[in-house]
Amino acid sequence: MPLDNAFYTPDVQGDYELHGIGRFELEEGGIIPDLQLAVATYGTLNEDSSNAILIPTWFSGTHATWEQVYIGPGRALDPEQYFIVVVNQIGNGLSTSAHNTTDSPITMSKFPKVRIGDDVRAQEQLLREVFGITRLALVVGGSMGAQQAWEWAVRFPEKVLRAAPIAGTAQNTPHDFLFTTTLVEAITSDPGFAGGEYSSHADVSAGLGRHADIWAVLGLSTDFWKTEFWRGVPAPEGEEPWADFEDFQSRFIRALFQLMDPNALLTMAWKWQRGDVARNTGGDLAKALGRITAKMFVMPIDHDMFFPTADCAAEQALTPGSELRELHSIAGHFGLFGFQSSYLEEVDAHLGELLATPSS
Amino acid sequence: MPLDNAFYTPDVQGDYELHGIGRFELEEGGIIPDLQLAVATYGTLNEDSSNAILIPTWFSGTHATWEQVYIGPGRALDPEQYFIVVVNQIGNGLSTSAHNTTDSPITMSKFPKVRIGDDVRAQEQLLREVFGITRLALVVGGSMGAQQAWEWAVRFPEKVLRAAPIAGTAQNTPHDFLFTTTLVEAITSDPGFAGGEYSSHADVSAGLGRHADIWAVLGLSTDFWKTEFWRGVPAPEGEEPWADFEDFQSRFIRALFQLMDPNALLTMAWKWQRGDVARNTGGDLAKALGRITAKMFVMPIDHDMFFPTADCAAEQALTPGSELRELHSIAGHFGLFGFQSSYLEEVDAHLGELLATPSS
Repeated sequence: MPLDNAFYTPDVQGDYELHGIGRFELEEGGIIPDLQLAVATYGTLNEDSSNAILIPTWFSGTHATWEQVYIGPGRALDPEQYFIVVVNQIGNGLSTSAHNTTDSPITMSKFPKVRIGDDVRAQEQLLREVFGITRLALVVGGSMGAQQAWEWAVRFPEKVLRAAPIAGTAQNTPHDFLFTTTLVEAITSDPGFAGGEYSSHADVSAGLGRHADIWAVLGLSTDFWKTEFWRGVPAPEGEEPWADFEDFQSRFIRALFQLMDPNALLTMAWKWQRGDVARNTGGDLAKALGRITAKMFVMPIDHDMFFPTADCAAEQALTPGSELRELHSIAGHFGLFGFQSSYLEEVDAHLGELLATPSS
Repeated sequence: MPLDNAFYTPDVQGDYELHGIGRFELEEGGIIPDLQLAVATYGTLNEDSSNAILIPTWFSGTHATWEQVYIGPGRALDPEQYFIVVVNQIGNGLSTSAHNTTDSPITMSKFPKVRIGDDVRAQEQLLREVFGITRLALVVGGSMGAQQAWEWAVRFPEKVLRAAPIAGTAQNTPHDFLFTTTLVEAITSDPGFAGGEYSSHADVSAGLGRHADIWAVLGLSTDFWKTEFWRGVPAPEGEEPWADFEDFQSRFIRALFQLMDPNALLTMAWKWQRGDVARNTGGDLAKALGRITAKMFVMPIDHDMFFPTADCAAEQALTPGSELRELHSIAGHFGLFGFQSSYLEEVDAHLGELLATPSS
């Protein structure tokens, strides 16, 4: 029986639709008997299906942030010009996930290992079968969404005209692998986790809190905390303003992650750790990136502590037809949440320019 | 009864002497009935006591690394020229600490809170009473040792001719505070920790391991891991070479931290989080740093993830008679361990120049 979790409902996440794409075989050998993808769309597909934009989601994220922060009339991601499809990644709590599936062979701790490549194949099938889309004007995503954007550009070069990976890499780094391990351990070390068979996410509240505390260190930046940037982040409606940085950390970051499902976070963490486009080319990263025909803007965030510009620039240098477009946010990786309007203006300018570039 | 822990013995740490300085009142109100400082000295004090160098230790560290990596004939820290005194910080496992004290009111979980200022006052007393030293040619330390060097220069300006804080700040940042919280939580969340009343550090092995895993992320750097720099770090004698980065992480970093005493790490963590020279001036950092008369070289490490150059440079800019001398190490904060000879050459060049500067 699925676990109740209010975080993964339209009340919190806004509207989305579930699209079943049937039995889905995973690269690691597992099977999802009836894969449901949670999809939100904005705008209208044009007659020749040439205005489709795909957005895959990041770790712990859903389509909601994209809707609230990045998509809108007059923006680069303009639903009046484009048909924008945001697909929640497999296992994220909205699409088929450990806590919400009714297929008993894959519930909770039995949920199979999922790879970035699985998401990209599932999205390709969804776009083709449900929407009749076989070419993308753009695939854009942040963090794990960037991993998926890279994978799309390598795996289906003929289907991707443009790609914009923001704050993420094509091949996960050892440093990121180790970072993600600490996130995993924060959750699994909680006795309430019970090997993944907890009866409510609230049983794992302490572990989710420790997981959030690590995010507060690596997700933001020393300058974010030092300048007290958080003072400008509104407290939830009806709540007191933040008293100090620990209060912000507790009521904003901890409170958010403690709403989430532990198994969902672990499914995504395992996937993140192993993101690697070179799986398509026998381990040869340069060869994998050399396949790309999309026009690409590679967009790291300058204060990002775990997808630093240097790591992104190294991959960009191996990618034909790509440019490095560094974004700036004192919020580091969490700049993705759009804390700064200047960051969002940069994103819009780069994406607007990319979308205006004729496809080759 | 003190707990046995082989890590805190001369077999592992090399020679040191214990010097009792009597009953010691702490700034937070606690009392250490008979404070023993573990001290290692190198060289000979000259007749006018003008060649004394003080080195306080860092988090989890002891005098041993300084002896093995930084001190030696022909080096800047030359025992043929200087009388070098390395003082293990209070609570570090060698000086009076939670696990080694026989004073029952302060054993284990009852060990009192200690501040950076306590260490500096204890060291001042030790140097004066035991060695007859009232002025220091140099105080140099890394990380928490840098916190103590800053505190010395602010608190006893007339006693410090030169100071070199390496990879550490005068006022701890909120980002560092949050980072240290994750280290603390990794240990205290282990059921084996038993609220600080474990019967062996081995009971807390899982927590110490998770603590080490967080260090592997923030203590080193993305480039350290990406370039596989660790391949050049020798495995312990008689052991196999590292198979991969996870093996290095497990057998090098995890294995090291799992030897340590949990309460010792927690005593140091609490102290680190609250390091702040502005406690001497009613919270006014500029006023505190303005007191400094020592000639100072402020020496951050370029890849340091939690004492970044920007944080150190901001304090240096407030400090009269100081210069910023950035060090370079792909090992980030753990560059302090001297993984790179080029880093050690830089340190020696800067410290040599500083020591050659006439005192004002």
